[in-house]
Amino acid sequence: MKQTTARPGAGEPAAPPAATARRRGKALEQAIFEAALEQLTSGGYARLTMEGVAGAAQTGKAALYRRWPSKLELALDALGSTLPPLTDVPDLGSVRAELRQLIGTFQVAMDSPAGSAMRALMAEVDHGGGGLLKDFVMARLVGPARRAGLEVLRRGERRGEVRSGAVNEMVADVWPAMLLYRTKFGAESVDAEFCDHLLEDVLLPLIRPQAG
Amino acid sequence: MKQTTARPGAGEPAAPPAATARRRGKALEQAIFEAALEQLTSGGYARLTMEGVAGAAQTGKAALYRRWPSKLELALDALGSTLPPLTDVPDLGSVRAELRQLIGTFQVAMDSPAGSAMRALMAEVDHGGGGLLKDFVMARLVGPARRAGLEVLRRGERRGEVRSGAVNEMVADVWPAMLLYRTKFGAESVDAEFCDHLLEDVLLPLIRPQAG
Repeated sequence: MKQTTARPGAGEPAAPPAATARRRGKALEQAIFEAALEQLTSGGYARLTMEGVAGAAQTGKAALYRRWPSKLELALDALGSTLPPLTDVPDLGSVRAELRQLIGTFQVAMDSPAGSAMRALMAEVDHGGGGLLKDFVMARLVGPARRAGLEVLRRGERRGEVRSGAVNEMVADVWPAMLLYRTKFGAESVDAEFCDHLLEDVLLPLIRPQAG
Repeated sequence: MKQTTARPGAGEPAAPPAATARRRGKALEQAIFEAALEQLTSGGYARLTMEGVAGAAQTGKAALYRRWPSKLELALDALGSTLPPLTDVPDLGSVRAELRQLIGTFQVAMDSPAGSAMRALMAEVDHGGGGLLKDFVMARLVGPARRAGLEVLRRGERRGEVRSGAVNEMVADVWPAMLLYRTKFGAESVDAEFCDHLLEDVLLPLIRPQAG
């Protein structure tokens, strides 16, 4: 996230006074988003406050409220700006290679600071977050994961690698469900080795055509 | 939960004065647990307070702190007392019947008030809850679900209904992972129909022996 900061020379002693005196537009927005994500990751949604973000980003609480009616809207905007989009996987010639890439991309994203902030926010789905948050999770996580998975399954079916009964949302939800479950509750770490096992022990057996 | 209340006649106008004047032991504990679960379910862990529980259970905050060093310990005790144990499934003659019972029991439990409180508490795993909470989730949810699943898979393997490569923790985690994922993020409701689909579209294809 640090690399995306659009503040040339900010914090350097030799920076021109006019530039440091007041940050506007993108630079201020970036500082606000970074502060919000930092608070979300370190203390969770319950401990994220408009006051805390305003203080960390060196701006006023009133300025925040002018743009974001609540901390939920701010948190979602901040997360939306850094969360890498879960894009479709290109044709790699085999369903094994494509599923592996899909799982790997998701696992790396969930392991990133943005992923950590995302999980802190997801924890709020059950209470308080309501429709706005659930919509966000569906739009940025569940929906894209499902779409990308279905596309890989359809391509595999055309190649004869995937049985036709396996091309559905239920099957496409298995890998994100397993990654989230293990990330959250597992004693084991969710790393490349885990992704390999998930692919070989669960996903490939689940989708392969019945022999004979 | 109401049925388990061990306060005969509580709240009835004709109750003897000695019994209503001061609740002790089990009756007071029960009132405290009910208040804690009620707060956990309605407002989530962040909004659960020792003060609120003391007020609702008509006791003092000091009395709570004498027994529970923090609200986390209280929440875990309260939940532990009402969460139905996820017991092993008896031999029902087929892996389909046993898995269906296992999924159904879990789905009903997660849908209960205790399950709702459990999910509110699980939301806290990512931040603050730390080891104590993760241990609880492992001991009362992930571990029992995995053990019960493995037992069903092993029995199915002995009957020739389950391929030997499918008898492992990764496969045993698929159904609780899917139930939690859909309960939390799905647009669809997690009901008996969902459980049927999970069984037929995912679990049975995943474990069946390869033909030929």
